[in-house]
Amino acid sequence: MWRHIDLEHWKAPEGYFSRNFFNSISGLKSANMIGTIDDKGVSNLALFSSVVHIGAHPPLLGMIMRPLTVERQTYDYIKKVGRYTINHVHASIAAKAHWTSAKFDKGLSEFAACGLTEEFLDGFPVPYVHESQLKMGLRLVEELPIQSNGTILLVGEVEHVYVKEKTVQDDGHIDFASIDELAIGGLAGYFTVRKLAEFSFARPNQPPKNLLDQ
Amino acid sequence: MWRHIDLEHWKAPEGYFSRNFFNSISGLKSANMIGTIDDKGVSNLALFSSVVHIGAHPPLLGMIMRPLTVERQTYDYIKKVGRYTINHVHASIAAKAHWTSAKFDKGLSEFAACGLTEEFLDGFPVPYVHESQLKMGLRLVEELPIQSNGTILLVGEVEHVYVKEKTVQDDGHIDFASIDELAIGGLAGYFTVRKLAEFSFARPNQPPKNLLDQ
Repeated sequence: MWRHIDLEHWKAPEGYFSRNFFNSISGLKSANMIGTIDDKGVSNLALFSSVVHIGAHPPLLGMIMRPLTVERQTYDYIKKVGRYTINHVHASIAAKAHWTSAKFDKGLSEFAACGLTEEFLDGFPVPYVHESQLKMGLRLVEELPIQSNGTILLVGEVEHVYVKEKTVQDDGHIDFASIDELAIGGLAGYFTVRKLAEFSFARPNQPPKNLLDQ
Repeated sequence: MWRHIDLEHWKAPEGYFSRNFFNSISGLKSANMIGTIDDKGVSNLALFSSVVHIGAHPPLLGMIMRPLTVERQTYDYIKKVGRYTINHVHASIAAKAHWTSAKFDKGLSEFAACGLTEEFLDGFPVPYVHESQLKMGLRLVEELPIQSNGTILLVGEVEHVYVKEKTVQDDGHIDFASIDELAIGGLAGYFTVRKLAEFSFARPNQPPKNLLDQ
């Protein structure tokens, strides 16, 4: 039994149902916390599910900022400092990571409030999350306003990556299952993962092989 | 044991290691196939792991197109027709979905070549993937060139959603585990998911509750 939802349905005022539904339909999302710091040295940490791969060479990551109709601490601090951190979320810190999405008062660090630990590394001005097993320091390189709804795509170049050695496969891929990496569904769902397949490079003349079967 | 990778490492020519590594570090990615159609009525289908949530009201989804230095059929057809489909990938069609990432000749439909079925619905000009249990018809509304590396963010408004009734929870969230939804890691890894938590709305004064524990 199929449900068909079309334009007429979302001309109605936004409610929790449509918010949850339309936050789900992109598919599973990355689970990251964005670390920033203000000009008084107070750190800030916020959950983002919109971090997206932009390029590998140079390594670029994007993320979607919500409209600036209210104060956005993460955006403000990234603009001022020009640097920020991206910290992966694992099963062991899921509740703490979700908690960083609450609206904490300015001047209060979500690190302390949510039970996560600041970690400054190699002179980078913004703290990483100590508990995160894959974390990056980035420099803001581009800001693209999205006219359709007032959101903003921020693009950053990766300057540092810290990752647990055992997590990196010989081919360069991250072994996500080994670090209990999470995926986010909608606004509230957190999912653990199990590797189903690792496919050979796809060519037109033959179906890809699942390398896990060999 | 930590591995620290910094700017010096990616000034080297790009190889498979860095390509896989930097395609992994955004975290787990959505698994979707983009359906398009050319002016001769030949359909096209291509795997994308960069579909990202842009907004819920109106419902907007983004995706990253690679640089137009070579022919990009998906991009060309979206521009010409103004409409495209996004079709979720499930465990049962993982190998076929990955196969659509191969470079097939122009004029050949990846639907037939990879064993997936075209489905035209409600007068929409572009086919959906019959085997997909969550699929959408979109209208291109915005195109943002990313200067840093020549990629392009395409933004589309969702005009139609088709989803299996049992998949939609009462609160509007999609029950991803029930449709064997996949997440992608890097360029070759496909992951099934299990729901770990569904958290209550985060408020500053108390840790979020896992509603699955109640």
